[in-house]
Formats: sequence, C-alpha cells, structure tokens
Amino acid sequence: MFSIDHQHKDSHARTGTLLTAHGSVSTPAFVAVATRATVKAVEPEAIRDAGLQIVISNTYHLHLRPGEDTIAKLGGLHTFSGWTGPTMTDSGGFQVFSLGAGKEHGVGKVASIFPDEGTPRTANHYRQGKSLVKLTEEGASFKSIIDGSNQFFSPESVIEIERKLGADIILVLDECTSPLHDYAYTKNAMERTHRWAQRSLNAFNASAGDEAYPNPDQILFGIVQGGAYEDLRKESARVIGGMPFGGFAIGGSLGKSKEEMHHVLDWTIPLLPNDKARHLLGIGEIEDIFAGVRRGVDTFDCAAATRIARNGTVFLKGQPRHRINLRNARFADDPRPIDETCDCFTCQHHSRAYLHHLCRAGEFSFYRLATIHNLRFLVRLMQQIRESITNDCLDELEKEWED
Amino acid sequence: MFSIDHQHKDSHARTGTLLTAHGSVSTPAFVAVATRATVKAVEPEAIRDAGLQIVISNTYHLHLRPGEDTIAKLGGLHTFSGWTGPTMTDSGGFQVFSLGAGKEHGVGKVASIFPDEGTPRTANHYRQGKSLVKLTEEGASFKSIIDGSNQFFSPESVIEIERKLGADIILVLDECTSPLHDYAYTKNAMERTHRWAQRSLNAFNASAGDEAYPNPDQILFGIVQGGAYEDLRKESARVIGGMPFGGFAIGGSLGKSKEEMHHVLDWTIPLLPNDKARHLLGIGEIEDIFAGVRRGVDTFDCAAATRIARNGTVFLKGQPRHRINLRNARFADDPRPIDETCDCFTCQHHSRAYLHHLCRAGEFSFYRLATIHNLRFLVRLMQQIRESITNDCLDELEKEWED
Repeated sequence: MFSIDHQHKDSHARTGTLLTAHGSVSTPAFVAVATRATVKAVEPEAIRDAGLQIVISNTYHLHLRPGEDTIAKLGGLHTFSGWTGPTMTDSGGFQVFSLGAGKEHGVGKVASIFPDEGTPRTANHYRQGKSLVKLTEEGASFKSIIDGSNQFFSPESVIEIERKLGADIILVLDECTSPLHDYAYTKNAMERTHRWAQRSLNAFNASAGDEAYPNPDQILFGIVQGGAYEDLRKESARVIGGMPFGGFAIGGSLGKSKEEMHHVLDWTIPLLPNDKARHLLGIGEIEDIFAGVRRGVDTFDCAAATRIARNGTVFLKGQPRHRINLRNARFADDPRPIDETCDCFTCQHHSRAYLHHLCRAGEFSFYRLATIHNLRFLVRLMQQIRESITNDCLDELEKEWED
Repeated sequence: MFSIDHQHKDSHARTGTLLTAHGSVSTPAFVAVATRATVKAVEPEAIRDAGLQIVISNTYHLHLRPGEDTIAKLGGLHTFSGWTGPTMTDSGGFQVFSLGAGKEHGVGKVASIFPDEGTPRTANHYRQGKSLVKLTEEGASFKSIIDGSNQFFSPESVIEIERKLGADIILVLDECTSPLHDYAYTKNAMERTHRWAQRSLNAFNASAGDEAYPNPDQILFGIVQGGAYEDLRKESARVIGGMPFGGFAIGGSLGKSKEEMHHVLDWTIPLLPNDKARHLLGIGEIEDIFAGVRRGVDTFDCAAATRIARNGTVFLKGQPRHRINLRNARFADDPRPIDETCDCFTCQHHSRAYLHHLCRAGEFSFYRLATIHNLRFLVRLMQQIRESITNDCLDELEKEWED
C-alpha cells in the first residue's frame, strides 16, 4: 500500500508511492479538498488535468447531503463524482469539534494562525460560541446544519458511512481538542480517541469483504491526537502507531504557533511505523509543507489554496508569502499571465487583466480559473519537493522558497 | 459579410453565412450572452468547446468596468477575453432603457412574459420604479451602478466605445420603449432612434480605418424600433433598412404577447434588405426561435438559457417546456445524464444525481456544468434548424419540438 522510494539523507523526508484501489500517489503529495464531492468551483476533470493525484471529501458533509446511501446506490464516491482517482474521506471528527469545543473556543487547529491572517489572541478572546455537540463515550450527538435534525456519530457508524461512500483511504472518528484545552482535557480526549480507534478497527475488519459496499479495498488510517503536549503526543503516536492501521494521520490541536506545530511533528512521526504513509490533516501553507515534509509527512490537505483563490489571491513565487491578489488595481491592465512559468490552464489562456476584471465583477468563472492556478501551483511545488528529496537537495529548494 | 445559402421554400427562413473578421457564423445561430466579457460561470474555451459560434457582450457593462480604454490597451475584446471567435457588442441602449422607462414600467421586451413565468399584468402593476436616466436629443445621462459616477452615452460616444472594445459586429445606440408606452411616445422614440442611427453611421464611417482601434473590420448593425405599432414598425424597418448598415437588429418593445411579437416580426422583416443579416435582440426561448427563424431572423441572443441553468433548470426535449429542474428530489439518485442523447461535456461526464447534489449544495461547479449543457442544447437545436431549412422540412422539425 505504501512504499518508500527514497529516504532523504539529512531529514525524515522521503519520497514514496501510496497505492490505492484507484491508482497510486507519488508522495509527498498535496491532497485537494473536495469537501462535498467537488473541489469548490472546479469540476473533477479539471482537477485531474491540473495534475492532482488525490482528493479528500468529508464524511460529515456527505452524510448530511446527499447521504451515504444515495452515494452507495450510485456506486460510491468515484462513480458519483466522476473523480476516478485516489480518494480519501475525513471522518467528520474535526467538524464535530468545530461545532463543539472549537466553537466554544473560536479556534481551529493552530490557535495563533486562526483566522488565517490573525494575530495571537487570548483564551478569553476566543470564547465566542456555545457547543452544538454532546460528546459521550459512545459517540457525538449534534444537529444537522441543513435541516436541524438530530445526528449521531459513533466510531462504528462513521466506518459504516465511509464504507458506503467508498473512498480509498478512510479516517477513523477522533476527538479533536483545541490549543486552548488544558492537559487533563486533552489527555481524556486522547484516551477516548484511542478507544474509538480500536472500535473503528473492529468495525472496519468486521465489514471487510462485504460486497454490499462499493469499494472492497479501502485502507483505514488511524489519527494521532494529544494536542501540543509532548508526553501525550508521544503516547498517542505509540498507541495509534501500534495498531494495525493502513496509514496514519496527525490531527487535532497543533499548538499555538508554527514552532509548536513543528514540535508536535518532531514528537509524533519518529514513533509511527516507518513503512506506513503519514497524513497531516488540514495543513498546507507552503512553509508548513516544507516543515512537514522535512519531518516525514507524506500527504497534506488544506482548503486554504482554494479558499484564497475565490477571494482573488493566487500563488506567485517570489512575492510576499508567494501570493498576489488579482483584485489589486495594479493588475487592471497587466497583459501577463499570473505566472509566466506556469503551465496551468489559466496561465496558458488568460491575462492578469482579464482575471482582475472577472474578479472585480464577481464572475463565477473567476473562481474556477484562480482555483485551477493555485492547485496546479501546489502540484508543481510537490513535484519539485519530490525531486529535491530524490536528489538530496531539499535544503536548497526550501531556501529558494523562503519569503 | 452575409450570404444566403438556402432559402426555405415555405417561409422567410433561410440558412446563411455571416462572415466576420474573426470567423464565420452559420445561421440561423444562437449568440451566447457574455455580458461582461464572459458567459456567466463558463470560461471562453468551454464556450468554444460547446460549439458556440458567436458571443455578445455589452457596451454599457464593459464601459463601466473595466472600461473600453483598458480593453483597447489590451488589444480589444478578443485578446482580452481569450474568446477568439466572432463577437458582438450590444450598444447599451437596452440597459439605459432598463434604468429609465423600463424601470418606471417594471417591464422588459415583452410585457406578458416578464418576469419569465409571469402572467399579464396591468400598467399600474408595472409602475414600480423611478427612472435613473435623463434622455435628450443629444443622448442619455445616467449614473454608474458601480460607483455612482455620472455617465453620458451619445450615438457617437457609443460608437467610440465599441470601436475600442473591438467586437466584430457592433450595434448602434437606440432608444427602447416599453410595451406600455403609448403611440405618441413610441413614435417620438423611434424618430429619435432614426436620427441617432444616422449619427452612429456618420461616427462609424468617420472612424473607419483608424488603426488606433483594435479591430479595423467591424460591422455596424442598425436597430429597428417602433414598439408593437404596425405603422411605426414598418416605417422604422423602411428607414433603418434603407441606411447602409452591415446588418440589422430588431429591438425594443415586442408587445404584450407572443402573438404581438410575431406581428412585429411579420411587419418588420420583409422590409429589411434580404441580403443582410437580421438579429433579434434578447429573444431565445425555443418556441420563439422557431417563430423567428420562420419569419427570417438569422441570429438570436438571450440570457435565459444561462440564467435558468444557474437556478437548476436544464433543457431536455420532450419535457414540459423542454425543461427539467435538477433541484427536484426525483433526481437525487438518478444515475442517468441530463440527456442520454446529448454530447455536451456535462452529459458525457456527470449524472443527474451528482448535478442534483451540486445544485442543492450551492456549489459553483454546478453553475458551469448546467450552463454548458443548456448552451450545447441550443447549439444542437440551431444545427437541426439549419438542416431542416436546407432540407425544406422546417415544419416537421417545429412540430417535433412542440411541447
């Protein structure tokens, strides 16, 4: 399922091949976010054309709409969406967290970089909502954001939903914590996550080979929790890493700064089996990709690249944060493509001036064109990273990308 | 510039070839509406792939944003947008009307079918706004909807704007009337339109060959007005038809019913030169296309096909009004394409169930996929119509399309 092709000599970075029932993924790789079975604003065929190898959809969103039974009836996610390549489903654990503790704390995976461009805030500043989730040992109760209906996720029900969705790689239900949760809370959540992981494995194994499901060759990934606490992360990596999962994801709170996130990876990854793929959930800024790759992460998913595109921000190497915003007046009559060295559809066909116009006019066609560029940019970045690992010049490449 | 290929034996219908500086158009043809230099939700390349031959953009919208000077600097509309085929620009006369008399009357081109699905209303019902336009013999003053700035359109300034935009076929500034305007008002507006037509021709001829503009081989179309009054329409057809325009559009009020629209065409078209192309502005429902073709219309533009797509409505022959709405629950698990006989990108790749899901979820990718289908549907309909004219079996085809 996963094989290492080349181990970088100076770091934990490695190139590898992740084999799934719907094709292989050359790693390190970026996983495009297709929450509701489509990358926002881009149809699956253009995602393939942009060179994406794998997409990740969300169990929570697809359970609520259109429902896993509908998707199963139509042959599973691949047939349903027309994306025929490797596919993951996240478990919905993070969404449950977002509606619960994350909402109370007003915080995401890394406190200091939430919201995206924000500055560090105090705990009091974060408290801004009321939990919509009731967590018990059995699972998580919550209300549908679509119709207000009562919903319940257990480790077993999530496996069943993901069996019906039929992604190639599926993730267990976990209990996420926020960077503002204390040690005791984080430890309890981690321990529950470990018990849920075992229940998920049991349910997964019990349904193995059941031909009622669309994809008989699914791979189950465990998720390491433990917040930004060293002993908890290490314990979680040992416990989860010791279970017979097909691969591992690193989830939950990654601390209050990029430095803490690096520590979390440094503590976690050396304790995970070397011969299994490692996915870093919800992280995908350029500098974070380098930091993760260097520490042994194989795959990343992140909605930022597509979200910022819809707001006019596109990647361009060498600019501040490797970004420009096409809404800016200086692009109004700029005949050049976003990036003269880019081979994406958008750069091959359209000027900054035209994209600026579409963006200012709020035309939907802009969202697609900007998203395609940003995804292609990440595909090419990952390709460079793979080559630099193979050639043992990752340091040089990372230096080249410092901004 | 326009040549008749085959004259239908039983009607005014004809097939023809409209030659422009950016390619030829086989007529009768549907002109895709690309108001702001993009068909809504679909990039120019996919419009070409769907078989569209020609698009129409809008002088009013492009003047306000990004401005004709910007587009001229970038080489004109073709270079700017990446749509390299035949292109028209409407003059903005209808938009000025919409902000003025049309707003006061709350009415479009045909009273009884505005809004789209509405029932006939009384004049009082229509009066719902205050004009934002001041019309004089010199031209039209109005405020920009984008920044509130004062704007002024004259026949001459519109020609200059359209020269800078560089479409292949450009339309004169006209004064539209509403179906609720009385005879005297309509007559005055028509007479002013005739004076403006002459001024437009003068301005057009004065700027011919000026290499400062991006497209030296533009064709100027006159616009026939006169509301739904027989003697006015005939007079306007004679006057405008007698001027040395490269082609003719039929604009303004087409009455209070489809029958009145048919009368308008019956009065107008026989008085226009037979060897010039005739465009029917803003009309493109299936039955209207047949009615227009039969009466000698060569090209049609209409935003309905793309607008209804974004609301979930797609064309399917044999359904009521040849339409289905993908939002309907019955499509939730329907694995078939919209139309099993359709060769469009959407029908070749995606099921009704997936489209239903994208539509319900409000995904932008839906807008594009539904729009592509509706445009391809009209392209194929026009192809059938051209073949039926050539084979003198238009009656049979029209009967087949009755719903």
